[in-house]
Amino acid sequence: MKKHNFSAGPSILPQEVLQKASEAILNFNGLDLSLIEISHRSKEFIAVMDKAQALVKELLELPEGYSVLFLQGGASTEFLMAPYNLLTEGGKAAYLDTGSWSSKAIKEAKLFGDTVVVASSKDKGYNYIPKGYEVPSDADYIHFTSNNTIFGTQLNEFPGGDVLKVVDMSSDIFSRKIDYSQFDVVYAGAQKNMGPAGTTVVIVKDEVLGKSGRQVPSMLDYKTHADKDSMFNTPPVFAIYVSMLTLEWLKSKGGVAAIEKENRAKAALLYNEVDSNPSFVGFAAKEDRSIMNVTFNLTDESLKEKFDALCLESGISALNGHRSVGGYRASIYNAMSIESVQVLVKAMQDLNK
Amino acid sequence: MKKHNFSAGPSILPQEVLQKASEAILNFNGLDLSLIEISHRSKEFIAVMDKAQALVKELLELPEGYSVLFLQGGASTEFLMAPYNLLTEGGKAAYLDTGSWSSKAIKEAKLFGDTVVVASSKDKGYNYIPKGYEVPSDADYIHFTSNNTIFGTQLNEFPGGDVLKVVDMSSDIFSRKIDYSQFDVVYAGAQKNMGPAGTTVVIVKDEVLGKSGRQVPSMLDYKTHADKDSMFNTPPVFAIYVSMLTLEWLKSKGGVAAIEKENRAKAALLYNEVDSNPSFVGFAAKEDRSIMNVTFNLTDESLKEKFDALCLESGISALNGHRSVGGYRASIYNAMSIESVQVLVKAMQDLNK
Repeated sequence: MKKHNFSAGPSILPQEVLQKASEAILNFNGLDLSLIEISHRSKEFIAVMDKAQALVKELLELPEGYSVLFLQGGASTEFLMAPYNLLTEGGKAAYLDTGSWSSKAIKEAKLFGDTVVVASSKDKGYNYIPKGYEVPSDADYIHFTSNNTIFGTQLNEFPGGDVLKVVDMSSDIFSRKIDYSQFDVVYAGAQKNMGPAGTTVVIVKDEVLGKSGRQVPSMLDYKTHADKDSMFNTPPVFAIYVSMLTLEWLKSKGGVAAIEKENRAKAALLYNEVDSNPSFVGFAAKEDRSIMNVTFNLTDESLKEKFDALCLESGISALNGHRSVGGYRASIYNAMSIESVQVLVKAMQDLNK
Repeated sequence: MKKHNFSAGPSILPQEVLQKASEAILNFNGLDLSLIEISHRSKEFIAVMDKAQALVKELLELPEGYSVLFLQGGASTEFLMAPYNLLTEGGKAAYLDTGSWSSKAIKEAKLFGDTVVVASSKDKGYNYIPKGYEVPSDADYIHFTSNNTIFGTQLNEFPGGDVLKVVDMSSDIFSRKIDYSQFDVVYAGAQKNMGPAGTTVVIVKDEVLGKSGRQVPSMLDYKTHADKDSMFNTPPVFAIYVSMLTLEWLKSKGGVAAIEKENRAKAALLYNEVDSNPSFVGFAAKEDRSIMNVTFNLTDESLKEKFDALCLESGISALNGHRSVGGYRASIYNAMSIESVQVLVKAMQDLNK
């Protein structure tokens, strides 16, 4: 049965990527060896790493002077690596609090020094993006989350000010055109728009490397990985390979500009249904809605059983909201087709029949 | 062409494991979804995690009171997590230096406090295991590497003394029967005897959790992961699944005792050839030889081209020694068949024809 996979992450990947990954597990590049049993220092895997890095640079149109790293540990590890690498002793870090992931990042930063929250939308259950805040000019950096997977909100404008910018783009990297030259560190767990769980892409401006003055353990130091081209230790071979395949697929689709057009069309279709269907109500403030994670609730909870049954028989999978907020969440990442969104819209319409 | 894969890691995996992994990429458990696009909080993946942990406990015959964690970042990350979690402020760490990996672990520990090297075999290029050293009784722990992948040496006896024991078993976990109740922390990158690159198994005695008195960032705190059953953040789904498959395979083979018998037979066959063949000389001291990584050199370097050609035409792959030492290294992990070792022995014999 054809499934329509709305999982928030790990999440849908292109079918042709899955096919190639499956084949590489049995015989990689005609070597008569599996992708996952060859040395990471073989010329075949080094070519994968090089290509994955080059595709990130090309697809995001990164200017010169940035390193692309493939690390492990997810955004949760970046929550501590960012302050370890950027927050000076006695310095100050600024954070924008737009949801659970921002809060977790703030918690880790506090272990490293003075951490200021410039604005928070916690007062309304994180259903909007704060505006009009000031970034302290004496901060070492400002950290923000570009898309809030759980709440379905997204930043359309990014913090300004003359401080370093650190952005967690785990759930919307590669989904829309952005000027990356405004950022100093960008990180994203692969398992939304880039690949499977198991690797984190970290894009770091070379001029900020080694600047905190702290003695950073080797594995937590961006400079270690930049100097060794993400080969300081054994990298997560499979996750990087599948990320490379997914980026190749994105390039073949026309790149970020082309996928953004599709993403906006999918989101518009779904939000239009949320707004016009009397059985549903959107969660996020309209002007801050995410084009990646569409969050909504039933207006009448007694319809839940019927709607869940309609979803099940349509092949709709993983539509439940995050366990911390409930309701529904349709994650419509790059690999999700508009046809699958149409199946969901039809199930929403059928609820009123 | 049938390849005989002697790679030191990532390394050979059982064919039936590769087959099942390849299938799961396309359709996992009959869900009509890929293993790598489902939520890590789905009941299907939680079952994988639970089974992988249970198999580790069963195969290693762990007593009660240990937690099995599946983390990321490899042994290189454990080099810093061990002192972060166990070395008290003002305390002392003891290390046995038996090779490059021990040295790297020592380097990271020094960032956290007083680090004493109880003995080192660096004086002879790490070709033996030091004996007769004393472990300081005021150390918080003693750290050692059970098997030295690069040099082909292995500990047959483990340090004693009334201090915590921390062991890096990256290249020989699951290969021989050991009383694990003597250890407090055991860690191993998966990519030798357990699975693909991308996850690290960490076995930790519950009573040592949270004991260093330091404020440890969440992702670096063993307690975080023990409390959350390795689901604090998104785990490396694929690497854990393939590890589970490999452990199932090991159990079906009769477990660690049965595989140890095979491993010792493979090692004996190969070392016998190294010792009896005039064209080769072993690298490691005989009493400290590893049953996982057999290191040897040509007695006459001019034979290199002929031997490499013989290997190539026999399908022998990845026999080169580590780039830091050169020579040859046959890694004969659990999944390597004795037939493949026989092919290598024959190539070694053919060199003299």
